[in-house]
Amino acid sequence: MKKLILITNDDGITAPGIKALVTEMQLLGEVIVVAPDSPQSGQGHAITINDPIRIKKVDIFNGVEAYECTGTPADCVKLAKNVILKDRTIDLCVSGINHGSNASINIIYSGTMSAAMEASIEGINSIGFSLLDFSFRADFSGASHYARKIAHEVLRNGLNGCKLLNVNIPAVPLREIKGIKICRQAEGTWVEEFKEGIDPRGQKYYWLTGAFVTNDPLTDHDLYALSHNYVSIVPSGHDLTKHEALPGLIHFEKI
Amino acid sequence: MKKLILITNDDGITAPGIKALVTEMQLLGEVIVVAPDSPQSGQGHAITINDPIRIKKVDIFNGVEAYECTGTPADCVKLAKNVILKDRTIDLCVSGINHGSNASINIIYSGTMSAAMEASIEGINSIGFSLLDFSFRADFSGASHYARKIAHEVLRNGLNGCKLLNVNIPAVPLREIKGIKICRQAEGTWVEEFKEGIDPRGQKYYWLTGAFVTNDPLTDHDLYALSHNYVSIVPSGHDLTKHEALPGLIHFEKI
Repeated sequence: MKKLILITNDDGITAPGIKALVTEMQLLGEVIVVAPDSPQSGQGHAITINDPIRIKKVDIFNGVEAYECTGTPADCVKLAKNVILKDRTIDLCVSGINHGSNASINIIYSGTMSAAMEASIEGINSIGFSLLDFSFRADFSGASHYARKIAHEVLRNGLNGCKLLNVNIPAVPLREIKGIKICRQAEGTWVEEFKEGIDPRGQKYYWLTGAFVTNDPLTDHDLYALSHNYVSIVPSGHDLTKHEALPGLIHFEKI
Repeated sequence: MKKLILITNDDGITAPGIKALVTEMQLLGEVIVVAPDSPQSGQGHAITINDPIRIKKVDIFNGVEAYECTGTPADCVKLAKNVILKDRTIDLCVSGINHGSNASINIIYSGTMSAAMEASIEGINSIGFSLLDFSFRADFSGASHYARKIAHEVLRNGLNGCKLLNVNIPAVPLREIKGIKICRQAEGTWVEEFKEGIDPRGQKYYWLTGAFVTNDPLTDHDLYALSHNYVSIVPSGHDLTKHEALPGLIHFEKI
């Protein structure tokens, strides 16, 4: 029987990245697309609880069953599983291909990864794909090739007890990609700046900008792999406990 | 010198929970409040990148320096650190007191915890406080008492290398709280439902609802502590790598 693959993203259903992913996943199984009707970058793991959500069937992928949704990427996955595909087993959820990196700490802010994580929490093997190029005219050849290879492997052999992969692809042509590295998430942070401005009504505003910096000195992380033209795969989860800190804080039980 | 304490939340600057936190933190140091101008529950780690953000100085906490912000909880922390308190060292960031639990997997969806996590990423010791009662008329006596105790201990002795605590307080009167437990995040998930409806214009909509379920059989986690009337403290971080899964996926480097 054909495998059922759910596709979503956070750049919106009309972004080139999701189109590339639909093309590749059609080679591997039956595809259903449920994606936001507008860009949702920086949404983190937002869900919509105080407003209704609407879905609309659209035909923009040459006959592939597809729905645009007014909610966040995590909402899309919840709706797909509980409403659109209610009685069916989803074999794989893929999210992306994101326009821009979700390596290192960017997983925290990423709608693409939140959608994949939501599916993984529901017990579905999931992969988020991101290309290190923000342009809507980016070259998706390398990303497409590796998305298909990795999804194929997950569909065939599973994830060995893991449920979620954060996959990032360097912004170079396919022939320059050296292969795949299994990595941990690099330490890094955004050095923030806010541009101040005055709006047309004379009110002051602030607009977030910033530069990403890393000072992770080791070589077993995703940023190192990407900077050497490897595709990075970080097996990921949703347990935020800092387990190694537990013994050192036990004195709080006595305060 | 007085310690500088940044306070934020996700229920909005007028919520009773943040008022309780301001009252307690004033006993420990100099307080600055930067909080959303409207409720932001379920916002996860959303940040505002495609729109400007505005801040307005308000006087609603008896002379305490306070700002309401049009952005998300994570935006509030970024603005506080980079604009409002630009040249000052923040000794502690506290977020909450949230109206409702952020135990177990709820940390993922929580604006309260995303604000605290944002501060921790910036190197600031941070605590998110949540009371297991959604009511705006909730009894904050227990939560207030333990928020002060825990914040005081962090200001005095630090966090032993950890930067972030997820603190949840059971919804019982102070005298019934048995103490504090240092825990890991429990496994759990939301069993989702969507209520279907028809809006006044005749369009179908879906509205998220659901029930939280846990089947974590052990006793070292936050849900267990809370169900036995202990305050739960989970030392938390932002590394989502599933480290134990790394060896089992190394074959992906050969596909």
